[in-house]
Amino acid sequence: MSVVIEPRVLKGFRDILPDQELERLRIVGILQQTFSMFGFVPIDTPILEYSEVLLGKGGGETDKQVYRFNDQGGRDVAMRYDLTVPFARFMAAHRNELYVPFKRYHIGKAFRGENTQRGRYREFMQCDFDIVGTETLSADLEIVVMIDAAFQAIGVDRLTIHVSHRGVLNELLASLGVGKYGVEVLRTVDKLQKIGADQVKAKLEDLIGTQAATAVLAFITATGTNDAIVKQMKELVPNAAADIERLRQIVAITGDLGTGNRVVIDTSITRGLDYYTGIVFETFLDDQPAIGSVCSGGRYDDLAGLYTKERLPGVGASIGLDRLMAALEDLPRHRAAAAVDTLVVCVDPALTGHYHAVARDLRAEGLRAEVFLEPRKLGQQFAFAERKGIATAVICGPDEIAKGRVNVRNIATRESAEGLTLADAAAWIQATVRKRA
Amino acid sequence: MSVVIEPRVLKGFRDILPDQELERLRIVGILQQTFSMFGFVPIDTPILEYSEVLLGKGGGETDKQVYRFNDQGGRDVAMRYDLTVPFARFMAAHRNELYVPFKRYHIGKAFRGENTQRGRYREFMQCDFDIVGTETLSADLEIVVMIDAAFQAIGVDRLTIHVSHRGVLNELLASLGVGKYGVEVLRTVDKLQKIGADQVKAKLEDLIGTQAATAVLAFITATGTNDAIVKQMKELVPNAAADIERLRQIVAITGDLGTGNRVVIDTSITRGLDYYTGIVFETFLDDQPAIGSVCSGGRYDDLAGLYTKERLPGVGASIGLDRLMAALEDLPRHRAAAAVDTLVVCVDPALTGHYHAVARDLRAEGLRAEVFLEPRKLGQQFAFAERKGIATAVICGPDEIAKGRVNVRNIATRESAEGLTLADAAAWIQATVRKRA
Repeated sequence: MSVVIEPRVLKGFRDILPDQELERLRIVGILQQTFSMFGFVPIDTPILEYSEVLLGKGGGETDKQVYRFNDQGGRDVAMRYDLTVPFARFMAAHRNELYVPFKRYHIGKAFRGENTQRGRYREFMQCDFDIVGTETLSADLEIVVMIDAAFQAIGVDRLTIHVSHRGVLNELLASLGVGKYGVEVLRTVDKLQKIGADQVKAKLEDLIGTQAATAVLAFITATGTNDAIVKQMKELVPNAAADIERLRQIVAITGDLGTGNRVVIDTSITRGLDYYTGIVFETFLDDQPAIGSVCSGGRYDDLAGLYTKERLPGVGASIGLDRLMAALEDLPRHRAAAAVDTLVVCVDPALTGHYHAVARDLRAEGLRAEVFLEPRKLGQQFAFAERKGIATAVICGPDEIAKGRVNVRNIATRESAEGLTLADAAAWIQATVRKRA
Repeated sequence: MSVVIEPRVLKGFRDILPDQELERLRIVGILQQTFSMFGFVPIDTPILEYSEVLLGKGGGETDKQVYRFNDQGGRDVAMRYDLTVPFARFMAAHRNELYVPFKRYHIGKAFRGENTQRGRYREFMQCDFDIVGTETLSADLEIVVMIDAAFQAIGVDRLTIHVSHRGVLNELLASLGVGKYGVEVLRTVDKLQKIGADQVKAKLEDLIGTQAATAVLAFITATGTNDAIVKQMKELVPNAAADIERLRQIVAITGDLGTGNRVVIDTSITRGLDYYTGIVFETFLDDQPAIGSVCSGGRYDDLAGLYTKERLPGVGASIGLDRLMAALEDLPRHRAAAAVDTLVVCVDPALTGHYHAVARDLRAEGLRAEVFLEPRKLGQQFAFAERKGIATAVICGPDEIAKGRVNVRNIATRESAEGLTLADAAAWIQATVRKRA
C-alpha cells in the first residue's frame, strides 16, 4: 500500500505520552493506596452498557452527549458517561453478594461528546469513591478526612475543602415558601463564583421574589469562622438545627483528626444536582483557585432507585483526574520523576549477554536499569539517555568484564568513576539519581 | 418511578467484584513494576478512534467483530479491538517526540463482539509491551527475559517459554518451492496442538503435496534438547544458518541470564499471523497447560507501514490478562489477599471521632484500618469483618479511651487481648494478619 493513512485521533480524544502516563500512574497508585488504607475496595464495570440502563427509560439533557449506537446484535448500547450510574446498577445487581456499609472506589474512563473548549476531553478519567448503606455522621466525616489524606499523599498540602449541608438550604427555601423552585435556585446559587453576587441576586429575584432572594443571598454569603457561620445559619434557618449541628460536628471532628483549618463551612456550596440531600463539598487547591473544584461530592438519599426498590443512602465524591493532573503540572514541585535510573551502554555487541547480566544485577539492587540495545557510538547512546531523562550510564568493555568491574558516568555533568564493583556502582548511581531529584 | 429497570449487563461483558479487582490491580502493579525495571515506559491511547485508522481502507475478517458506529458529529468511529493497531498509529503520530529504540507498555481494555463461548469476553484487558526501532538480538532476548521476570514476580515460577524463528520456516517453504502458500501453511501448522500431527499432515498434503508436507512436518515436530533441535534445524534448512544461529544464541544467553530451562526451542510455534518475520514465542504455565499460551509475540519487520513511510521494525508480546487471571485463580497458592487488616468497631456513636483517630494512628503504623460506620451490635460488626475478610478488630469504649488503651480480637479464633497501647495493638494485628496469610 503506497498511500498512508493519516495517524490522527478524534477531536476531544488524545494519546498519553510516557512522561504524562507515568505521572498519571503515580497519582492513581497513591489514590488506590490511600483508599485501601481506609478499607475501601476497588470494582470495575463495563464501558459499554444497555442504553436503557445508563439513560433510564426517558430522555434528558445528558443524552445528547452520550455515545450511543446499535451493536452487531441490534442491541441499543451506550458508552458510560460517568461512574455513578454504573455503580448504582452494580449495587442493585450484586446486592446479595455484598455487605453494607459498602465502600468502593472506581477509577476508569468515561465518555461524553461534549463541547471540547476549555480543556474538556470527550474521553476522560474519573475517580469515584462512595460509602453506601449508611446515613451516619461517621461516614460523612470519613469521606472528608479521606479526601484530605489523599491530597496530602499526592503531595498537595495547600488545599481547602468547602463543606455545606443541602438539608439546611432546602429547609430555608421551604420556610420561605419557595421550595418548589429548589432545583432552579440551586443552579443559580451554584454560579455565585462565576457570575458574582449581584447577578445571582437579580436572577433569584426574578425566580422567587425580592424578599426570598435577599434571605437566600444572606444565607449563601455568610462569612467568618466556622463557628460564626454556624451561628448565622442557626439564626437564618432555625428549623434546621439538626442538620446544622451535624455540619458543625463534621467540621469540628475532621479538624481534631488532623485536617487543621483545611475544612471550612461554605454556605455557597450547593452542587447543582438535585440528587444530593445532606452534606455537599468541593475541594480547591489554594495555589490554583482558578481551576475550580478538583474533588466534589456529597450525601444522597438513594443511589439505585432506578434499578431496585431497596433504598441505598450514601455519601461519595469524585475526582476529575484530567483536571487534577493539569493543575499538578502547573505546580513547580510536581515535576515528573525520571522513568529509568541508569543506561547500560553497548560497547561491543559480542558482549550483549554481559550487558543484560549487569542490568539484571543492578535491578536486584533496586535500580531501574535499561540496556542500550544497539551498537551505536557512545555519544549517541549518551544523547539517548539525556532524551529519555536517564541520569547515569554504566560502561564496560572486555577488560572491565574480565575483572568484574564497571565504569559509571553522570550524563548531565559528565563526571565519571572507573573500575567500580557492581555494588559500588549501584550506590554511586543511587546517590546521583537522588541528588538530581 | 415505580417500575425498576433490570440491572443487567450486555452479553460478553461483566462487572468485576472487589476481590477479583484487587487481584487484578495486584497483577497489573507487578507487571508495571517489572516493565519499569527494564526501562519500559507506559503510554495510553483513546478507546474510540476513526474507523479508517483502526481498520485501514479495506475490509477484513476482524471488521465484523468491531464495535463501529457514527458519532454525534457523523464521524465513522470504532472501539479499539487490540493495542497493536493503536500503537502503530501512535508511533507514526509521535515519531518526532520520541526516541528509538522506544520501549513501551500499554495495559488497557479492548473490545470485540465475538462469540462469547469458551470464556472469551467482548470487553477484555490486554497488556502489550514492545521494543521498536531496532533489529538486534539484544532486543529479542530482552523481551524473553522480561516475560520470565514478570511471571516470576507474579509468583509463577513453573512456566516454559517456547521460542522459534519464522525466518527459518519461511526459508524451508521457499527451498521446497511452496513459499506462496506460506500463510495457509502457517495457519495449518498453528493447529498442531489442537488437531494433532496426522490431521496437520493431511491438510498440508492437500495444500503443498506429500514431499513438502513430510519435510514441513519433520521440521515442526523436531524434538530433543535445544542443541539437538538446532542440529535438526540446520540439517533440514541449511540456507537459514544465520536465523538458526540467532535463535540458538537467544536461548543460550537467556539461559545464562537465569531463565534456566524455562526457555526452549519449539519449532511448532509459528503464530498464525503473517505479520511476524523473526523470533516467535508462546508462554505456557506448566501446571495449566490446557489454557494455552498466556503470553505470545514475536519480531516484525514493520510496525506502522499503514501510517508512515518510515520503517519501524520491532519485537513485542502480549498478555491476555483475563485468561491469565483465570489461570491464576485455579492455582491454590494464588489466593487473593485480604483487603483490610483491622476493623475499629463502633461501641458508642458519641465516640465516633475517637474511633477515626484510632484508625488514623493505626494507618500511621502501616495498617489498613477501617472504622465501622454504624452503631450496630458487636456480633453484627464481627460478622461484617468476617464477610469482608478482615482478620482482626479493635474495640474501645469510654474507659479504654480515657486510658489511651484498646482491646483487640482475632475474628476467626475469637482470641483477644485487652488494655494494649496502640503500638502494641498494631504489632498484635500485624502478627495476626501475617499468621493468617
